[in-house]
Amino acid sequence: MLTDVTRRGLLRAAGAAGVAATAGSAVAASVGVAEAATRAGENLPFYGAHQPGIATPQQPALFLAAFDLETSKVAKLRALMRNWSAAAARMTQGLRVAPDLQSGEVPPGDSGDVDGLLAGRLTVTFGFGARVFTLGGLAGRRPAALQPLPRFAGEEIEARRSGGDLVVQACAEDPAIAFHAVRMLATLGAGTVRLRWTQRGFLPSRYRGDQTPRNLMGMKDGTLNPRPSQPGFAQVVWTGGSDAAWLRDGTYMVFRRIRMNLPHWDSSSRSDQEATIGRHRESGAPLGGSRENDIPNFRARDRNGRFVIPARAHVRLAHPSFNGGIEILRRGYSYDDGVTEIGPLRDGAPHSHAPGFNAGLAFVAFMRDPQAQFVPLQRRLAAQDRLNQYITHVGSAVFVVPPGARQGGYVGETLLG
Amino acid sequence: MLTDVTRRGLLRAAGAAGVAATAGSAVAASVGVAEAATRAGENLPFYGAHQPGIATPQQPALFLAAFDLETSKVAKLRALMRNWSAAAARMTQGLRVAPDLQSGEVPPGDSGDVDGLLAGRLTVTFGFGARVFTLGGLAGRRPAALQPLPRFAGEEIEARRSGGDLVVQACAEDPAIAFHAVRMLATLGAGTVRLRWTQRGFLPSRYRGDQTPRNLMGMKDGTLNPRPSQPGFAQVVWTGGSDAAWLRDGTYMVFRRIRMNLPHWDSSSRSDQEATIGRHRESGAPLGGSRENDIPNFRARDRNGRFVIPARAHVRLAHPSFNGGIEILRRGYSYDDGVTEIGPLRDGAPHSHAPGFNAGLAFVAFMRDPQAQFVPLQRRLAAQDRLNQYITHVGSAVFVVPPGARQGGYVGETLLG
Repeated sequence: MLTDVTRRGLLRAAGAAGVAATAGSAVAASVGVAEAATRAGENLPFYGAHQPGIATPQQPALFLAAFDLETSKVAKLRALMRNWSAAAARMTQGLRVAPDLQSGEVPPGDSGDVDGLLAGRLTVTFGFGARVFTLGGLAGRRPAALQPLPRFAGEEIEARRSGGDLVVQACAEDPAIAFHAVRMLATLGAGTVRLRWTQRGFLPSRYRGDQTPRNLMGMKDGTLNPRPSQPGFAQVVWTGGSDAAWLRDGTYMVFRRIRMNLPHWDSSSRSDQEATIGRHRESGAPLGGSRENDIPNFRARDRNGRFVIPARAHVRLAHPSFNGGIEILRRGYSYDDGVTEIGPLRDGAPHSHAPGFNAGLAFVAFMRDPQAQFVPLQRRLAAQDRLNQYITHVGSAVFVVPPGARQGGYVGETLLG
Repeated sequence: MLTDVTRRGLLRAAGAAGVAATAGSAVAASVGVAEAATRAGENLPFYGAHQPGIATPQQPALFLAAFDLETSKVAKLRALMRNWSAAAARMTQGLRVAPDLQSGEVPPGDSGDVDGLLAGRLTVTFGFGARVFTLGGLAGRRPAALQPLPRFAGEEIEARRSGGDLVVQACAEDPAIAFHAVRMLATLGAGTVRLRWTQRGFLPSRYRGDQTPRNLMGMKDGTLNPRPSQPGFAQVVWTGGSDAAWLRDGTYMVFRRIRMNLPHWDSSSRSDQEATIGRHRESGAPLGGSRENDIPNFRARDRNGRFVIPARAHVRLAHPSFNGGIEILRRGYSYDDGVTEIGPLRDGAPHSHAPGFNAGLAFVAFMRDPQAQFVPLQRRLAAQDRLNQYITHVGSAVFVVPPGARQGGYVGETLLG
C-alpha cells in the first residue's frame, strides 16, 4: 500500500522540485534538480521566518538529543550551526547529508541507513542552553527568560536526562529517519559538541491533522492546544518586540521527561481516571460535556454539590482561566525505555514493587517566555494536580530557540553572525 | 496521504470481516461482525499452523519482552497462555484487548491508547524459555535443542538484557500498536509473570516486500535470508518429524542484542566498510558483483592475488557454503537506546571515549535447532568475523516457539493441554 504512496510521492517530486527552484531553494540549486527530483517527496521546508518542528503538525516519530559544548570559542559554535543548518536543510529535502565522494578511501558522507527513503516530513529544530551565552562575546545577549527552571514539588530530576548546551529535535514520519538525522548531526559536531542525552518518542501514526492523539493513559492529550490558525497563537509561542532583536520570531522549548506509573493507572477505575484528568476517556469531552471540544464547565456541580470537574482535576488546574490566561504549545510524545523498578508511590496509594515499563510522556512545549508561562503553570500543577499520583518528572531542560534561517543562512545567525 | 490509506482500509474491512466469518473466525464470531468490520483493517491472522510474526514479512516496529515466571504451577501457565492467546487474537484483529465494561467503578479493560487505530498488521509471537520445563509434569518434555547458548568469544552479555522464561514478540506498522499489545499482555500476566527485559526495534517503514532493509551501518541486511516461498524454508525454520510431537510446526527464537560502535564505523572508509561486510554499500552486491542478488564469488582474486571478498568478510564467514549449508531466518531490527560511553575497542582500533548512541541491531532469528544452526555459525563469526571490531553482543536469549494455535485454542496447547 505504501509502495503506492511512495510511487505517487516520486511522481509528485518533479513538480515539487520545480516549485523549489521557483522559490529559489538554495538546497535544490546546490545539488541539482535531478537529484532533488529523485528523492524530494514529502518534504517540509527548512528555511523560513520560524524554525520548523514547532507549528508543524506533529509527525509520529521524535528523536530529541541534547549536546554539551566542548569549545569556548564562538567561531566554532558558528561553524557548527552553519554546518548543522546546511545538513538539516539537505536531509529535510530527502538528500544525503553530504554527497558521497567517489573515493573508497574516505568515510562515506552519509551513514546510508535511510538511503532510498524520502524525507518523510522530517523537521530539525535547534535550541541553545544557557551555557552558550558564556562564550566570549555572547554574555550580554542572553535573553532574560532563559533561566534554569526552579525545583518543583515532587520531581525526581536525573542529571543524566537533563540540561544541555544545545538541543536538536528531529521529527519525522519514520523513527529511522529521525534517528538518522540526529546521528548525522552528532557526527558533524564531533570535536565541538558531545552527546549528553537522547529522548525518543512516538505517537500513533494514524492520528493526523486535527485528531487529538491519545497518550499512554488512553486520554486525548492536546485538545486545548493553541492552533497555528488561531489569532492568539503568535502571542503564545513566538518571541516578539520586547525581546532581544536577535530572538525575534524565536521561541523557547521546555522539555520534561514525565514517567508514568502505568500499572497504577491501569489498575484504577475508569471513574478515578476520568476524575483525575477531568475528561471522559472515550470521547475526550470535559466531564459533564459530550464532545471533545465542548468548553469545560468548571462551575457545574453534581447533585451532592461537588464539582463535576473535581477541584484537583488536571484539566481544571491547567486551564488558562485558572492561570491568568497562560497557554503553551505542547508537542509531546509517548516514550518507553525498557524496564524500571517502580518504587513506593505518593499520596498513600498502594505500593508496587513489580518491575514495570519505564514509560511515559516526553513533554516538549514551546512558548515565548518559560518564566512567565511554564513556571507558574507547573508550580500549580506540581502542588495540586491529582495526576501527580501517577506521574513523576525525571528529566528537565530549557532552551531558547532562535528564529528560522533565511535561504542560504543558518540557524543562530542573528546571534552569532 | 495515509488518511486515504486508512479510509481504503476501512472500506475493505467489511469484506475482510466477511472472509473472517467464512473462515469461521472465533474472534470475529465472539465479538460480532459489526465491531470487527469497524476496526478490522490491516489484520493478519493469529490462528494457524504456525505462529505469526515468523514467516510474516517484517513490519517496521518491534516490541520484544521477556518475562519471568512467578509460579511453579502448570495450571497457572496454562491459564496465562489461554488468556494471552485470546488477547493476542483480539488485538491482531484491531479489537480492544477486552470489551469495556459499562461500569466506571472498575479499571477499563484496555488502556485505550491505540483506540481508533486499526490492527496495523500486528502479530504476536510467544516462546518458552528453559525454566518452563521445570514446572511439574513438563520436565520430560523439554526439547533437546532448548539449551543455554555457550559463551562466544568477545561477547559482553548483560544479565539484565538476557534470558527469560517467556518471550512475547509484537511486530506492527506502528510502534504504539506494538507497545500497546505487550503492555496489555503484561497486565494480564500480573501475578503469574513479571517483566524481565524489553527490546524495541525499528526498520525504515517504507522498505516493503522484497526490498532488503538497511541496518544502521547502511548495509542491506538479509539479502540471503531464506524466503517462505522457497522450497528449503521449512527445513530451515520449522521443527519437524524428529522433534517432540507437541513441537511440530514450531521453531526456536534466538535473540541477541548487538551493540554497534557507530562512531568507529562512521569514521571508517567506504573500502574498509565494504571489505568488512563483503558487499558494496550502495547496491548491496557482493564484492566483485554488480547486483544485490548476484551469487558471491568467493574464489575470485584481484590482480594482487587477494580474495575479492576478503577471508574474514562477514558475508563469506556467514555463508552456507562455508558452514555446511547452515541457514537461519533473520528477522532483526535496528535499535537505539540512549547514550553510552563507548569503551576501548578491540583489534588495535583507535580508542574512543566520547559518549555515543547506544544503538545497534536487535538480532532476532528463527530456526529449527539453535544448537545445530545458530551455535556453530556464531562460534565461527565470533572467532573470525572482521565485523567484530565494530560490534559487541550484549544481550542473549533462546526460546522454543510452539506451533500456532487452532481457532479457539491457545499457543502452547500441544504442550500444556
